[in-house]
Amino acid sequence: MIKAAVLGATGYAGIELVRILARHPGVSIGIVNSKTFKGQKISDVYPNLTGIFDMPCTELDLDKAAECDVAFTALPHGASKDVIPSLLEKGLKVIDLSGDYRYDDAGVYEEWYGEKHSSPELLAESVYGLCELHRDKIKNARLIGNPGCYTTCSILGAAPLVANGIIDNKSIIIDAKSGVSGAGRGLNLAQHFCECTENTKAYKIGTHRHTSEIEQELSNIAGEKIMLSFTPHLIPQKRGIFSTIYANLSGEYKTGDVLDMYKEYYKDEFFVRVRDGIPETKFVCGSNFVDTGVTVDERLGRVIATSVIDNLFKGAAGQAVQNMNIMFGFDEKTALADAGYYI
Amino acid sequence: MIKAAVLGATGYAGIELVRILARHPGVSIGIVNSKTFKGQKISDVYPNLTGIFDMPCTELDLDKAAECDVAFTALPHGASKDVIPSLLEKGLKVIDLSGDYRYDDAGVYEEWYGEKHSSPELLAESVYGLCELHRDKIKNARLIGNPGCYTTCSILGAAPLVANGIIDNKSIIIDAKSGVSGAGRGLNLAQHFCECTENTKAYKIGTHRHTSEIEQELSNIAGEKIMLSFTPHLIPQKRGIFSTIYANLSGEYKTGDVLDMYKEYYKDEFFVRVRDGIPETKFVCGSNFVDTGVTVDERLGRVIATSVIDNLFKGAAGQAVQNMNIMFGFDEKTALADAGYYI
Amino acid sequence: MIKAAVLGATGYAGIELVRILARHPGVSIGIVNSKTFKGQKISDVYPNLTGIFDMPCTELDLDKAAECDVAFTALPHGASKDVIPSLLEKGLKVIDLSGDYRYDDAGVYEEWYGEKHSSPELLAESVYGLCELHRDKIKNARLIGNPGCYTTCSILGAAPLVANGIIDNKSIIIDAKSGVSGAGRGLNLAQHFCECTENTKAYKIGTHRHTSEIEQELSNIAGEKIMLSFTPHLIPQKRGIFSTIYANLSGEYKTGDVLDMYKEYYKDEFFVRVRDGIPETKFVCGSNFVDTGVTVDERLGRVIATSVIDNLFKGAAGQAVQNMNIMFGFDEKTALADAGYYI
Amino acid sequence: MIKAAVLGATGYAGIELVRILARHPGVSIGIVNSKTFKGQKISDVYPNLTGIFDMPCTELDLDKAAECDVAFTALPHGASKDVIPSLLEKGLKVIDLSGDYRYDDAGVYEEWYGEKHSSPELLAESVYGLCELHRDKIKNARLIGNPGCYTTCSILGAAPLVANGIIDNKSIIIDAKSGVSGAGRGLNLAQHFCECTENTKAYKIGTHRHTSEIEQELSNIAGEKIMLSFTPHLIPQKRGIFSTIYANLSGEYKTGDVLDMYKEYYKDEFFVRVRDGIPETKFVCGSNFVDTGVTVDERLGRVIATSVIDNLFKGAAGQAVQNMNIMFGFDEKTALADAGYYI
Repeated sequence: MIKAAVLGATGYAGIELVRILARHPGVSIGIVNSKTFKGQKISDVYPNLTGIFDMPCTELDLDKAAECDVAFTALPHGASKDVIPSLLEKGLKVIDLSGDYRYDDAGVYEEWYGEKHSSPELLAESVYGLCELHRDKIKNARLIGNPGCYTTCSILGAAPLVANGIIDNKSIIIDAKSGVSGAGRGLNLAQHFCECTENTKAYKIGTHRHTSEIEQELSNIAGEKIMLSFTPHLIPQKRGIFSTIYANLSGEYKTGDVLDMYKEYYKDEFFVRVRDGIPETKFVCGSNFVDTGVTVDERLGRVIATSVIDNLFKGAAGQAVQNMNIMFGFDEKTALADAGYYI
Repeated sequence: MIKAAVLGATGYAGIELVRILARHPGVSIGIVNSKTFKGQKISDVYPNLTGIFDMPCTELDLDKAAECDVAFTALPHGASKDVIPSLLEKGLKVIDLSGDYRYDDAGVYEEWYGEKHSSPELLAESVYGLCELHRDKIKNARLIGNPGCYTTCSILGAAPLVANGIIDNKSIIIDAKSGVSGAGRGLNLAQHFCECTENTKAYKIGTHRHTSEIEQELSNIAGEKIMLSFTPHLIPQKRGIFSTIYANLSGEYKTGDVLDMYKEYYKDEFFVRVRDGIPETKFVCGSNFVDTGVTVDERLGRVIATSVIDNLFKGAAGQAVQNMNIMFGFDEKTALADAGYYI
Repeated sequence: MIKAAVLGATGYAGIELVRILARHPGVSIGIVNSKTFKGQKISDVYPNLTGIFDMPCTELDLDKAAECDVAFTALPHGASKDVIPSLLEKGLKVIDLSGDYRYDDAGVYEEWYGEKHSSPELLAESVYGLCELHRDKIKNARLIGNPGCYTTCSILGAAPLVANGIIDNKSIIIDAKSGVSGAGRGLNLAQHFCECTENTKAYKIGTHRHTSEIEQELSNIAGEKIMLSFTPHLIPQKRGIFSTIYANLSGEYKTGDVLDMYKEYYKDEFFVRVRDGIPETKFVCGSNFVDTGVTVDERLGRVIATSVIDNLFKGAAGQAVQNMNIMFGFDEKTALADAGYYI
Repeated sequence: MIKAAVLGATGYAGIELVRILARHPGVSIGIVNSKTFKGQKISDVYPNLTGIFDMPCTELDLDKAAECDVAFTALPHGASKDVIPSLLEKGLKVIDLSGDYRYDDAGVYEEWYGEKHSSPELLAESVYGLCELHRDKIKNARLIGNPGCYTTCSILGAAPLVANGIIDNKSIIIDAKSGVSGAGRGLNLAQHFCECTENTKAYKIGTHRHTSEIEQELSNIAGEKIMLSFTPHLIPQKRGIFSTIYANLSGEYKTGDVLDMYKEYYKDEFFVRVRDGIPETKFVCGSNFVDTGVTVDERLGRVIATSVIDNLFKGAAGQAVQNMNIMFGFDEKTALADAGYYI
């Protein structure tokens, strides 16, 4: 039985972590940290938890944290960097849900986040926690940069195309659609019900930070620098990301050929389901699954891959627990193997 | 390890049963029956199940069913009655999700359903499966009439008022609001997305069949015949029922007094949470919980109780599994104790 | 051609006013006032207006306002009272969308709003702008207290019952469901998309201010003091209010009898449609209509009336324009006679 | 005053036509035709129309139709072709909302619709009714092929890029997202509320018929054959289409350069609004507007254009009325100039 601290437990990713960890047979939650709600029971902030998990929220106390084996940091951007070095010093393993420890190269971080990285030495050590791609490194990691939601969906949707070298790597375009929970629980006009419902929009065209994460990982797979278009859209649903991935084929392939490559690439992955048809967000919401599909448009010599995840689950909290399972020797599926709810 | 058959597995209640049973450590699913989808894998009908539960749907074969210990019948109205006697004969215990076996009195059934009951002798034997009220009888039952969704929510929301004799029993009014999944997966204009979304309506005012179920149970608690108003409404969400229950108080009580009665009444019930505030459907969706609240309007001498459930879970499949747990000696919470998803 | 000022033009009621007035052939909008967005074009705040109405928002300038004939004040609670006396002095007629001038009796205001009324002399003069009930007084009014959204829906739904003296006036219960736009554009967790969607809740049980407005108007019709239960609920849609109104009948009536009374009561009202069936919010959204229906439950001797409106239209901006039409001698239907959008 | 017949008046496009025509000062509706609802008042089928337009639906009677000046045919696919020749013979002008008369080349129709065209001689005569592109031809047309919803949005969003010759025409990718009303009122599991809400999916990748319409029009503008990727998605809202259009730039352009081209291209078009930012579907829903925006990603040498429409309005009924206005000499904006509803 290991002991976990959840920092930033009352955001949407944080509370999803709590909900998953609360049913994990090998974990006890030792700390739920929340600046805003300190002193309140977490089940008063999220009443779905009443009777199941009623621990009071506390402000961060590093000495108390030292009793834990692992910390999940689901803090606002920037806040992670201040606390993570101390947690590591205290001997915890850390799974960070912010963007701070996702990069191989501090320069890329600085270019896309517009600020210097505060602990480049940790960046060198941290492992990008996309479990399906970096399982071996994750096993022995002390610090995980848990991937972003758009990036998890997009990288896994595109990886077999790049890995098999069947596309023009300069032609990749990712058109991604996300539910509103991806923007968090903060108060913004853009998340007001009346502004979201019955509305679809694109935002940060060509400038979204997740672009750089996707480029990093696909470049690593390709063995050459890949630059690509990534366009995020906001759609009127709570959860779910849908990525539509376009690329020009470098040879003559049929849908079946490419589908076989996908099935081969993911043949050992429980959480990736390669579908003969096109996935829908409802196939995965409430679960840790990534569903992918692929279609070749022979008329144009172009492949269109599609992939879906639940942004709070595989796109945040679920993958964080999956990383923890790998790091601490649990069965990777523990607490994560249930089907989503569909309806 | 017991073996379960799910009849009508591809409706919304049926598939929720499959989803819950698939994670039940003491049950293996032996049969998933579906007329419409026979021969297809159930995970092709509900792709959230792919890789988790891929059993093919079959037409009902009573000999094969005989290998099972329990059958859940989630069939269209009327179809249950044809098959249940045979299942019982084969030695199975049966939990029926239709309205056929919920009544003490065949006359009430016939009045509200407009047809003669086909097996009144079974009706005499069957137990009304509202676990919190009839746990002892359920333990030894062979046939359960699993309660309706509106009724579960409304009866549990009103029971403490009636049991404590603090209201004028002639004054009860239940105004209930339900998500669309309560109407099932059948094709009807009323369930078309464009007709449902951004729309609220009432229907079957004064004539909804669940009225009679609520009256039966509250009358049993009161020890006198209760007749009441029940008004169902359709609201634009998938899941969730909200019941607002009005009654005139027969004496001078404050909110705190009545709240104490609720807490006392449900003090041993894990799945009923009495709240100091007002519950919301998102507190329970995705879970087997019933959340209740109560407010006394002293100005008017009236009490307003509120209660919420997930109509597919505690209002159908979850309660069916809870019944099974009681009948077969499992811990009542097995496979049912997770928190709902809130977001 | 009259000239109108809209104060508080960038809230949801304000912008609906602008949208309606922009198509009114007898009105030109002279001022759109907004503290928050002063200096910005209103079509930059609400881009649906681009190319149709692009006037810049200004801070309130009373001298400029003096050039207008009518002012609509859609200001936050309390702000109206400061500015309305000045507007009246400058010779404008004022239609106030706040709760400040809706009461006959300052004492009722003070009881429900918890503060002293700042201008009780104006309260004595102001007319409650429920057009169907007070048309004659509105014609000559200088100051209109434009009714609340819940109240418009509920009063018009219940009025024929009270006017015909067929119910026990002590038994009235109004269970009302509102879309989220009723709460305005302000930032609150309760209006966050992820908190609203897939959720239904009740709030302010027994204490909502609109209760007092409904009681005032029904008491006036009855000629005796009426006190009633009013329970507001929030449902996951943008627009629309549904009121379900319960009362015990004082004699034996059938649905047809009561329906005839409704049809007679509203026989000259274009904007009230008495339906043989049950109305739905989508029948009226985007329009100034109030649709009502009525069902007698003979088993219980109880009547259940239902009524629906669009809370931003007939429940706010539309009715304000209807009041203006009456006050300035326009055809009452001008700019208001279109059908709602249904889909 | 001209007289109009609406054939197929009770589908979603048909009823939107009725709603718009009912407020057109130069048109009286002579016939509302519906096979399914013949004999019923149209306001019983769509109760938002009660008191505004209550005409009974009739089966098609060509002699009665002969009294009309114009017919709108909003019939199921294939049905239009049977009736349109007769209507033309009777002397009516016809605006057809199906795909039958949208093509220059019967061969393209046959390739994408998989059947022979029944009246290629009419196809030669018919005009593609995208008003902004073909206004002059529309003026004198007898038969209009009213454009599809996806196509209107996509063609107008991409046209300035092609017309200015600044992109590689082989690189065009259109990723389009549509609300559910685009699929019509027919009963399909895919339109069931519980299957649509909280769900996003792609469909008919590389094979959607609208692809051929977009290719035809952009090819005509380019003066060379264009083939492109078009991917339709279904998103959980009633109305609204969002097209995200990608193309590789053939030279070095900045966002401002391309934006200027858009503004110049549409400078005389009331219904096309070129925005400095990115449009959202709520900017146009309930209106006849097309809003566009454009972003150059200089890092990649790629342009991303975005465009939005209301699929039932500018994407169907509104544009049909706009065509009628042009054909009959009305001001093109008549009955179409109102702002959408935003909320």
